[in-house]
Amino acid sequence: MSLVLGLDAGGTSTRCLVTDERGVVHGRGRAGGGNPIARPPAEALEQFRLAVSAAVSDVDPSQVEVALLGVAGTGDRPEMPDVLGAVLRSCGVGCPVLVRGDAEVAFAAGTPEPDGTVLIAGTGAVSAQVVGGREGRTHDGWGWLLGDDGSGFWIGREAVRVALRSFDTGEPGPLAARVLELLTGGAVGRSELVLRVHADPPVALAALAPLVLEAAVEGDPEAVDVVERAADRLLAAVDAVRPPGESTPVVLAGGIASSVVVGEPLVARLGERWPAAPLRVVVSAEAGAAWLAARLRWPDVGEDVHRRLCQPRVVA
Amino acid sequence: MSLVLGLDAGGTSTRCLVTDERGVVHGRGRAGGGNPIARPPAEALEQFRLAVSAAVSDVDPSQVEVALLGVAGTGDRPEMPDVLGAVLRSCGVGCPVLVRGDAEVAFAAGTPEPDGTVLIAGTGAVSAQVVGGREGRTHDGWGWLLGDDGSGFWIGREAVRVALRSFDTGEPGPLAARVLELLTGGAVGRSELVLRVHADPPVALAALAPLVLEAAVEGDPEAVDVVERAADRLLAAVDAVRPPGESTPVVLAGGIASSVVVGEPLVARLGERWPAAPLRVVVSAEAGAAWLAARLRWPDVGEDVHRRLCQPRVVA
Repeated sequence: MSLVLGLDAGGTSTRCLVTDERGVVHGRGRAGGGNPIARPPAEALEQFRLAVSAAVSDVDPSQVEVALLGVAGTGDRPEMPDVLGAVLRSCGVGCPVLVRGDAEVAFAAGTPEPDGTVLIAGTGAVSAQVVGGREGRTHDGWGWLLGDDGSGFWIGREAVRVALRSFDTGEPGPLAARVLELLTGGAVGRSELVLRVHADPPVALAALAPLVLEAAVEGDPEAVDVVERAADRLLAAVDAVRPPGESTPVVLAGGIASSVVVGEPLVARLGERWPAAPLRVVVSAEAGAAWLAARLRWPDVGEDVHRRLCQPRVVA
Repeated sequence: MSLVLGLDAGGTSTRCLVTDERGVVHGRGRAGGGNPIARPPAEALEQFRLAVSAAVSDVDPSQVEVALLGVAGTGDRPEMPDVLGAVLRSCGVGCPVLVRGDAEVAFAAGTPEPDGTVLIAGTGAVSAQVVGGREGRTHDGWGWLLGDDGSGFWIGREAVRVALRSFDTGEPGPLAARVLELLTGGAVGRSELVLRVHADPPVALAALAPLVLEAAVEGDPEAVDVVERAADRLLAAVDAVRPPGESTPVVLAGGIASSVVVGEPLVARLGERWPAAPLRVVVSAEAGAAWLAARLRWPDVGEDVHRRLCQPRVVA
């Protein structure tokens, strides 16, 4: 049996999938952040190995004939295919290894089309044009210090700002109470909250995002406001790379963009701006990598395989 | 001769002044950041000592009868008067030592009135109500990770964002060229710029602020836009603590708020919002500390001494 392997290494998780020509999944693996640029390399490569080894545990790894890996920020690191290929070989996968950007893989997980726009918003946020399957103009993805507007980090930071503002006005609202509960285990003063946040790495603020999304679902107006502003920032990121009047697909990926609570206002705004564009929400970016690998191995593979493998949510 | 000493310890500089009852200055001292909360304590206390020792070098330090020190963030540190008093004693100044917040001292440098509003915008940004000479409600001052909107840090970060955006669109403007020149010594790619910024402590971004102000003076539209947005953020900080219709003075302090280029749009907006309020720009916060010390030592000291000592710029 011929198989291909697809993998997506994000900031907080690495997911891997093995499929055959018909889009039947023969193995899945999941581990922590496996991007050797975003995290300490030895640690990241170990997570990467764990994800691959779980995915090939029920198959003969020598049957894997193409492996395609989505890894952010590797465009100017020509050594990456060798480094990652060595880890794959240690798991028994000796086939050719291709490394692609996370935007190309996420876009492929949303649509089999060659051209369009992708927005990835998880811990960070970046938008990109995709032209002929390859990344074109991008916007943001500058990291938490300089950008990632509308990302999980940004949402978490805004939640703390809302809490601090309520301290300043002397009227702490429900979102402030949630933030304090999560960060400090209960009521504290303004300066303790500031110190607490500074005691952790800044990116840890992204851990507050689920709490904000949850509060927004429950109708907390402060949380709804943060979520609406995140959607505005993410729309602006798409706007920065996508010409008016475009009718190619727009693909949303990452935990924030694909969440219902941010995704809904975002989809509404995208629909107003580009009414002719199909909108797709990515369910599993690793399936996009597997789809790209499958198309290389079996050039005639049909779009039905894309649907079966990637199952993107059709939202417009 | 009776003398008093005033000092203001900011994030990047400590300034000290010795005056007599008539507002005649008998000594000045200046050193690096001397706030033992904002910087490593041993280092900060040494800068603090250098500023004091320079200020008393031409007088008999035993003639100093009151010392008043403006130091941000010391409100919940009851040990501070003792710690700083010990340094003063090592310079021969054995009088009573009072430690006050930077907002109270900056406000006093702008006006002899007891009530009003102060905005300090230098490396960071904070606004505060002043009631009976003491700090009331405050807003922001949350540090670069969470706030300091409109500060020198904020302006520097916005300049890098403008540069990155111009990389994304493929049309680097003049502000981007200045940022690249200062940070990297010349043309580089987008990812090198991001890496360069992350190699320094985040607050180092404040070092870009003078460049942005200079570019705005020369009419660079991107720099003018950053400066206008900083003024909007600073206005919002004042708005957060100051009721509509107030006619008490508004005092602007710190390198950004007191700069001509940010100050002008800010003063215009403040004048529209509170047309009856006198606006004052602080020239030297340490003189405000000296004025407060003088009023303690000589309760009948006149407002002419405030004018001579503090020389605030009257802008409305």
